[in-house]
Amino acid sequence: MSSALSISGILTPLMVPLRADGEIHEDELRRYVDWLIEKGVHGLYPNGSTGEFTRFTAEERHRIIKIVCEQTAGRVPVLAGAAEANVRATLEACETYKNYGAQAVAIVSPFYYKLSQESIFAYYREIATNSPIDITLYNIPLFANPIEFETLLRLAECEKIIGIKDSSGDLAAMTRMIGAIHPQRPDFLFMTGWDAVLVPMLMAGCQGGVHATSGIVPEITRSIYDLTTQKKFNEAFVLQKQLLELFDSVFDAADFPEGIRSAIDQRGFHFGKGRQPLSEKQTATLAIATEKTRMLIEQMLSIREAH
Amino acid sequence: MSSALSISGILTPLMVPLRADGEIHEDELRRYVDWLIEKGVHGLYPNGSTGEFTRFTAEERHRIIKIVCEQTAGRVPVLAGAAEANVRATLEACETYKNYGAQAVAIVSPFYYKLSQESIFAYYREIATNSPIDITLYNIPLFANPIEFETLLRLAECEKIIGIKDSSGDLAAMTRMIGAIHPQRPDFLFMTGWDAVLVPMLMAGCQGGVHATSGIVPEITRSIYDLTTQKKFNEAFVLQKQLLELFDSVFDAADFPEGIRSAIDQRGFHFGKGRQPLSEKQTATLAIATEKTRMLIEQMLSIREAH
Amino acid sequence: MSSALSISGILTPLMVPLRADGEIHEDELRRYVDWLIEKGVHGLYPNGSTGEFTRFTAEERHRIIKIVCEQTAGRVPVLAGAAEANVRATLEACETYKNYGAQAVAIVSPFYYKLSQESIFAYYREIATNSPIDITLYNIPLFANPIEFETLLRLAECEKIIGIKDSSGDLAAMTRMIGAIHPQRPDFLFMTGWDAVLVPMLMAGCQGGVHATSGIVPEITRSIYDLTTQKKFNEAFVLQKQLLELFDSVFDAADFPEGIRSAIDQRGFHFGKGRQPLSEKQTATLAIATEKTRMLIEQMLSIREAH
Amino acid sequence: MSSALSISGILTPLMVPLRADGEIHEDELRRYVDWLIEKGVHGLYPNGSTGEFTRFTAEERHRIIKIVCEQTAGRVPVLAGAAEANVRATLEACETYKNYGAQAVAIVSPFYYKLSQESIFAYYREIATNSPIDITLYNIPLFANPIEFETLLRLAECEKIIGIKDSSGDLAAMTRMIGAIHPQRPDFLFMTGWDAVLVPMLMAGCQGGVHATSGIVPEITRSIYDLTTQKKFNEAFVLQKQLLELFDSVFDAADFPEGIRSAIDQRGFHFGKGRQPLSEKQTATLAIATEKTRMLIEQMLSIREAH
Repeated sequence: MSSALSISGILTPLMVPLRADGEIHEDELRRYVDWLIEKGVHGLYPNGSTGEFTRFTAEERHRIIKIVCEQTAGRVPVLAGAAEANVRATLEACETYKNYGAQAVAIVSPFYYKLSQESIFAYYREIATNSPIDITLYNIPLFANPIEFETLLRLAECEKIIGIKDSSGDLAAMTRMIGAIHPQRPDFLFMTGWDAVLVPMLMAGCQGGVHATSGIVPEITRSIYDLTTQKKFNEAFVLQKQLLELFDSVFDAADFPEGIRSAIDQRGFHFGKGRQPLSEKQTATLAIATEKTRMLIEQMLSIREAH
Repeated sequence: MSSALSISGILTPLMVPLRADGEIHEDELRRYVDWLIEKGVHGLYPNGSTGEFTRFTAEERHRIIKIVCEQTAGRVPVLAGAAEANVRATLEACETYKNYGAQAVAIVSPFYYKLSQESIFAYYREIATNSPIDITLYNIPLFANPIEFETLLRLAECEKIIGIKDSSGDLAAMTRMIGAIHPQRPDFLFMTGWDAVLVPMLMAGCQGGVHATSGIVPEITRSIYDLTTQKKFNEAFVLQKQLLELFDSVFDAADFPEGIRSAIDQRGFHFGKGRQPLSEKQTATLAIATEKTRMLIEQMLSIREAH
Repeated sequence: MSSALSISGILTPLMVPLRADGEIHEDELRRYVDWLIEKGVHGLYPNGSTGEFTRFTAEERHRIIKIVCEQTAGRVPVLAGAAEANVRATLEACETYKNYGAQAVAIVSPFYYKLSQESIFAYYREIATNSPIDITLYNIPLFANPIEFETLLRLAECEKIIGIKDSSGDLAAMTRMIGAIHPQRPDFLFMTGWDAVLVPMLMAGCQGGVHATSGIVPEITRSIYDLTTQKKFNEAFVLQKQLLELFDSVFDAADFPEGIRSAIDQRGFHFGKGRQPLSEKQTATLAIATEKTRMLIEQMLSIREAH
Repeated sequence: MSSALSISGILTPLMVPLRADGEIHEDELRRYVDWLIEKGVHGLYPNGSTGEFTRFTAEERHRIIKIVCEQTAGRVPVLAGAAEANVRATLEACETYKNYGAQAVAIVSPFYYKLSQESIFAYYREIATNSPIDITLYNIPLFANPIEFETLLRLAECEKIIGIKDSSGDLAAMTRMIGAIHPQRPDFLFMTGWDAVLVPMLMAGCQGGVHATSGIVPEITRSIYDLTTQKKFNEAFVLQKQLLELFDSVFDAADFPEGIRSAIDQRGFHFGKGRQPLSEKQTATLAIATEKTRMLIEQMLSIREAH
């Protein structure tokens, strides 16, 4: 059913709102999904790094995908983060998320242990051989073992692996990957996860991006995408610079991704308090930084309105 | 009940044997616990890095602690790895493990996200304030956010935090930590997790060590500990060098901790296949390396016998 | 006299040809300078990393600048690498290079020792206060201490410091720097040193680039610059991709910058053998890689000719 | 002549005193050499990292060796840092330093450029093949390209290469190196350059150490060496801990090696101001830290006196 949807453009990595008792705030999550789709995002990516997948239990991760798929109801594709403690649990999540209506799953590279590229390959191959749903690799070397170029080439031979979300922000590396794989698999999906270089990444051949800032200002990231595909590169770069300012403000506010939570609140949501405790000092810093973020958002939106 | 036991000396970080169907091999785990205690280890540390805690589900992690506590039956202290997805789940594990009879819990520093020291502090303080059981910090900068010196000093003011397991292998850093904390809290526990420097770490004031190799040759690590405390440093260093060779052989065999699994099998166990898939090439490498490991173990034990 | 020339566009970091006896090959260097200027480069940058400044003696570094300034004869600006063993020696080089006719000097950030940002600041401030010639900072974090954002802001208050050559390749960082400094000093020079991202760096506001590949295919880097300033971004990106392939081929050939030497030879020069010894294995690898580089160059030039 | 001296024990890496006009303070350097030898150091190591070899010109580096060799006059061996801009200049320094009476030369691994191990090997082999004087490798991965284990094994086959000074501080790595090379070349020299682990390094088989702190408290490092060789390990460890405190105080004072300069002054010397400029803030920090260092030195010496 949902397989008719194709993944490209701007996908929002979904942060999860929490209630005062620390539980998932389902109503607010549903409202947020609707809002994002209305604002023009091309797809949703729950259970990613912005979605704090490591801070939820396995049951909660499943529930998040269920809610998001239900609420999206086929309007846009859902790319579901499906990495669990081991291959078996991950494959069970793949099966379940397919049934929920996810378009594909994203599997982050193994983390915690330092693994060789041969292990990264063996891990993904095992999953790809047995998965009932399409897979995108998720390369985020800042947090997890890197998926190196040669490993990607080997994995691109697996039919079920349909793309990669790359959060390294390395434009040259992305260009090399696209140049090596698109001749054989022109539909292989390259999504950048580095907000600060969205425009040049699209120019280099990426089909889209998965950006935390799109969860704050989905209008702006959509505009950047549209302007770039319309070859209005200079206009796109102006918005890109504003996005970088927002990105920096959010990252200065607190350890990632906590600054995104309070930034989303500025758009009229109640995302609650995060699960990673904050010290008194951090709480004070976050409050000040959020005020700066709020002003940046207002400014971006009013400039946009003016056009 | 178990609170009478004190933690010091050599603790074995327990690897978990798996059945052919990939499930926890309970009988073999119980047999392994008995064997280790008979061979003289001073305590057990399940759900650590060697124990592959990230590759088990939350339910499995609980089951492992239950089995180990039951089987140990108070003969030696159990230090239970208790980190879960978030503070609430971690505190629930603390409560449960206390009831199972664990002596204390070890909480690894947050991983995946890169956190500031202020966040590390806030995380541990929140847990320490609410935990019903004593806590040891677990610093393993290779895999998780580092616990820096100043942060440790702040955390050492929490009553429930009774020590640190440090796997950085940095002798100067350990000396600084001991020098700064022991004057105020002479019983604060410093355990090294770096097999290769056990002797000098003990000389520098550590009360013991948590060593993966103690799960393979518990007799040898026990001897190193005894010789060092008896001030037979030269004899201890000879064994330390042999241990380093074993350590290297195990680490060359496969990505950590897979080489330890096959090494334990050389002592008469059936630990099965790990949950991280191996490629054909890796399987072949592991087989050859295990043969080398086997010979090293034999040699170490026969030298020991001769004395 | 030379102060009328302004630095912008593509500057070539000059490699130095060597004679069979290992000495500087002056005639070939002069011929190379002429060729580069004829091919359209906007300036020359001797004594940089490509120019292997650390492998020449202080006397040789002075001689290189003398030769290059003489031969250039004011046709294009010369940005002379002037870092010497200490501040005094560096200031003497500044004085001498000014007299030779250099337009400005580039001072690489201190290397070998790991220095704090406060030391980096103090170092540059001391030089800037006493230099008789304009200075560009040279940030190359791969080889030398990084010049961080806050340090750059402090240094941008020194009148003699007129710009920065940044070889980090970080587009977001460059955007931040330009955004922070251009409002106060609109003429402050931002030159990228990362060949692989020349186009987006120019789009982000850089006035030009210092690229090793411009010493091999000056026609192509000039075209990329011209196309980008004419807003023909798509055409520019096509050439950028070809340049990346050349860049990769040269870097695969040997440890940087040795692959550039043999690549320049493919354009009809005799640059000799480098001063860093090569093993037999390395010599063989270089020969094969150079053949690939030769074919890439031919292809790039013939495509260009066809247009 | 000097070839009868053998290198082992504590070698002092010599800092160079400077006059008010920034030039080498020859008289003070000679006085310092005498003082160190009287205090019991086993050898001198000029032109190392502590000696700021990169901040002197080639002529000054030659002059430093000349002064030190003359003043030492064969009382202890001189290990002369001889790395110059390229192999030819380095070999000329080797020749000159041999004539000055140096016992051997130390060649730091190439720095600035990131080189492959094959290049490191080719570099040292070329020098070793042509050097008229014995060579020790100098591994300091914090500042220069690392000399990896396999590369060391290959280089240990060169007759002229008689040892390695290793400043990595990695006890396991040192144990591996000694275990691999001493069976073939029992006289191969292993010197640790990491003050904080001198005792365990000696226990692991090192013949001695090259320690910056030995230039401040030569009596103490000599005592540590003597106690360790007499197997009085516990006493040695007590002094080791004091040395670590001094080491930390000196490193907190300023970017290495500037804190050592002012510490030496506390022993009655006038080492002047360093060549790396200090900001006002740094000057103030250094003054306060030096006072702490002074008290530590006094305390160490008075404790020693009391015994």
